[in-house]
Amino acid sequence: IYNCMEGDFIYVCMYALREWVAIESDSSNVLKRPDLHRMMETTAQKLRLMGGTVELVDIGEQELPNGQTLALPKVVTATFGTDPNKHTVCVYGHVDVQPAKLEDGWATDPYNLTDINGNLYGRGASDNKAPVLAWIHAVEAYQALSMELPVNVKFVIEGMEETGSNGLDAMILAQRDTFFSDVDYIIISDCGWLSRRPALTYGTRGNCYFFAEVEGPKQDLHSGVYGGTVIEPMTDLIGILGDPSGKILIPGIREAVAPLSDEEWKMYQDIQFDMDSYKNKIGVTQLMYSNKVDLLAHMWRYPTVSVHGIEGAFSDSGSKTVIPAKVTAKFSIRQVPNMDPAMVKKQVTDYLHSVFAKRKSPNKLKVTMVIGAKPWLADTQHPLYEAGKAAVKRVFDMDPDLIREGGTIPIARTFQDVTGKSIIMMPIGGFDDGLHSQNEKMSRYNYIEGTKLFIAYLNEVSQIKKTSV
Amino acid sequence: IYNCMEGDFIYVCMYALREWVAIESDSSNVLKRPDLHRMMETTAQKLRLMGGTVELVDIGEQELPNGQTLALPKVVTATFGTDPNKHTVCVYGHVDVQPAKLEDGWATDPYNLTDINGNLYGRGASDNKAPVLAWIHAVEAYQALSMELPVNVKFVIEGMEETGSNGLDAMILAQRDTFFSDVDYIIISDCGWLSRRPALTYGTRGNCYFFAEVEGPKQDLHSGVYGGTVIEPMTDLIGILGDPSGKILIPGIREAVAPLSDEEWKMYQDIQFDMDSYKNKIGVTQLMYSNKVDLLAHMWRYPTVSVHGIEGAFSDSGSKTVIPAKVTAKFSIRQVPNMDPAMVKKQVTDYLHSVFAKRKSPNKLKVTMVIGAKPWLADTQHPLYEAGKAAVKRVFDMDPDLIREGGTIPIARTFQDVTGKSIIMMPIGGFDDGLHSQNEKMSRYNYIEGTKLFIAYLNEVSQIKKTSV
Repeated sequence: IYNCMEGDFIYVCMYALREWVAIESDSSNVLKRPDLHRMMETTAQKLRLMGGTVELVDIGEQELPNGQTLALPKVVTATFGTDPNKHTVCVYGHVDVQPAKLEDGWATDPYNLTDINGNLYGRGASDNKAPVLAWIHAVEAYQALSMELPVNVKFVIEGMEETGSNGLDAMILAQRDTFFSDVDYIIISDCGWLSRRPALTYGTRGNCYFFAEVEGPKQDLHSGVYGGTVIEPMTDLIGILGDPSGKILIPGIREAVAPLSDEEWKMYQDIQFDMDSYKNKIGVTQLMYSNKVDLLAHMWRYPTVSVHGIEGAFSDSGSKTVIPAKVTAKFSIRQVPNMDPAMVKKQVTDYLHSVFAKRKSPNKLKVTMVIGAKPWLADTQHPLYEAGKAAVKRVFDMDPDLIREGGTIPIARTFQDVTGKSIIMMPIGGFDDGLHSQNEKMSRYNYIEGTKLFIAYLNEVSQIKKTSV
Repeated sequence: IYNCMEGDFIYVCMYALREWVAIESDSSNVLKRPDLHRMMETTAQKLRLMGGTVELVDIGEQELPNGQTLALPKVVTATFGTDPNKHTVCVYGHVDVQPAKLEDGWATDPYNLTDINGNLYGRGASDNKAPVLAWIHAVEAYQALSMELPVNVKFVIEGMEETGSNGLDAMILAQRDTFFSDVDYIIISDCGWLSRRPALTYGTRGNCYFFAEVEGPKQDLHSGVYGGTVIEPMTDLIGILGDPSGKILIPGIREAVAPLSDEEWKMYQDIQFDMDSYKNKIGVTQLMYSNKVDLLAHMWRYPTVSVHGIEGAFSDSGSKTVIPAKVTAKFSIRQVPNMDPAMVKKQVTDYLHSVFAKRKSPNKLKVTMVIGAKPWLADTQHPLYEAGKAAVKRVFDMDPDLIREGGTIPIARTFQDVTGKSIIMMPIGGFDDGLHSQNEKMSRYNYIEGTKLFIAYLNEVSQIKKTSV
């Protein structure tokens, strides 16, 4: 069957990706919403022409900061095959993209897919248009050879992933007993390899995102006129955030983390990962840890705090002599097993209030947790992963690295919590694809071999015994 | 002569202020530059019609952040009288304003002067249009009564004060031996009283404004994907700024400050200043110091640090999971006698680098001082101040408070350094005028009595013996 991945078929794949990348489906830009709607319609039409049972599911509207409402892009669902004797897999993906402008530093027009030395440059090429298309091509490949699909294949494709999957949770919950009722496995290909070696992803970190607001005077004050008389909110805020060690000082956080087992240590040791190319990629001379196992562990299975910025203070260029009246620090703590967001919320809030109390400041501190996403972790011995290992072996003639994702893919938790089904993350993106950055790309190699991987995987999944779900 | 300040003449004063406030001479908004040019022309025309020798001095262009250039508003100079037997005073003022929009929280249109219970609300009413007009009215009053001016009066009126007096220093330097050659005294009325009691201002704090930039990765990173592996610039920056005490920890800063003398302590003790109304005005329950002398001393004659904000981090509303690659803290230290900006620059830079070095971070710290303005302090026993006390006594029948200004009025230093002449600051603005804030106002009382004060002051200055300059 892989032989079909040559000549005309490859041309069809390239043409499809070019067509999809050309649509500026930026979900964060309300002015591009018509393009986003067109992207969903294009996706639906593609699946309809392939003979799928396709629906464009209305998921309502979003409210904009100015109070106006805007229609959300519909979610595309599609079904290929309903044979009750076969397994049913459901592929999740998204076709919206991050913003991109040529003047941000792109070498080529981000919406004109450009092949340079086998790399296909364009916004959304790797995140997540080519992986979604590769799944579609996998189905097309069986159809092109007039072969029956070895498993029933469903698709759920959304258009709001880059801005938080607005409306998707509710849609999944609403269709739990209809569209999702016969789904056995969920497959997500919205991530990437760690090196040139293929990978399967078995975990993601969660995230607890906090706002710490310190409020003082009723309005911003001139720092010359008032400096020295008022207790400045900014001083309080930096005082409670400042920490000479760079470690998480909040009691209880580190204690909750699952200990690193010898087995896990050994697994990390075997993973292909080049520290130097990682350093080069991000442009630093030194990382937090100088050995691979520690670094990977802190990327995937230990919590970390990042302070993202401060709202309400002076953040423009130039100099302004202001005492900001109300300042809000934005920071987040990545969640790993066995941390519990509800507990973390309490720990962080209590800690900040206790540090703040020591300052005896008349200003008011308010701590709120605006996101509380749990981590996700799969069993790498599960038949779904064994099938994945077999498919990688068949296509690439090597074993995959079993890796985790430091970021959060909240939809994995939703699928797991709502449907109760097992999930596998099967990336085909390269480690250097530049997601969310300038010059995002997908290599021809990963796109085409990735399609072969998915073809093989459908076949491997069909051989999982029906009992093991 | 004060009797002229009634009936028609008051109407003329009100009309002039209404006309000036109606011009949106916002120097920070490049789109308002035509209005600003019109404001300078209106000012010049007013002075011309009064018979002054008026010039609109071209001070060149400013460069905008986008590389374009924009003509600066011309500086208006005017001369009334050239009698070599008289003293010559030079009044400095500005007719540009801070931004203001009705929707910022103004109760009335900020560019339509509105009289509510004797308060004249409008942007620029107090800062600095009414004080400039009050000086003009003082000259007009003598003219209206066909009285000879007791001193020669010059004006220097600029249109860029609110954005840093771009081009003015060079203009003063260029005209040192021409326009300024016969000036004996400089008068500035660009400040306010401390209470309902009239005041003379004899000092301002200087300001050293710093940028502390920490640079790490070559671009912003996703906090999920990279959090835990990179040493985050934001953590470093907050780490070196954070300080549990709220005091200035930088060695050498406090040591340089001139000690508070018993005499000064007593002077502060006698100043009319209501702590409760000060607290109410800024909306706080507690100030840095709970007694008047400490508070005034820390407002005027001790240094203070304010952290204004951080550039380069996430400062918008909402949540973004970013590790900012380069972050720049903006902070400033108010300067008082006997601090030296050059020394402060070295102290701050050395201190931050030493604290940063302890972190052993691979990130790069760069500290730059972008403003280094010295404090200004006058001798309150100087004949110029004695004349001021006499004028206040005559018009208000009380002694003025001798106060300082916590903010920086760099032009005072420039006048002093370039011309070598003595300077007096003679405010007529109220303590609650709301400069730079919503609902800025000037009371009719301060405007009219302020004009009388200036009339009286010109007379008092004329009696200073020619020898004492």
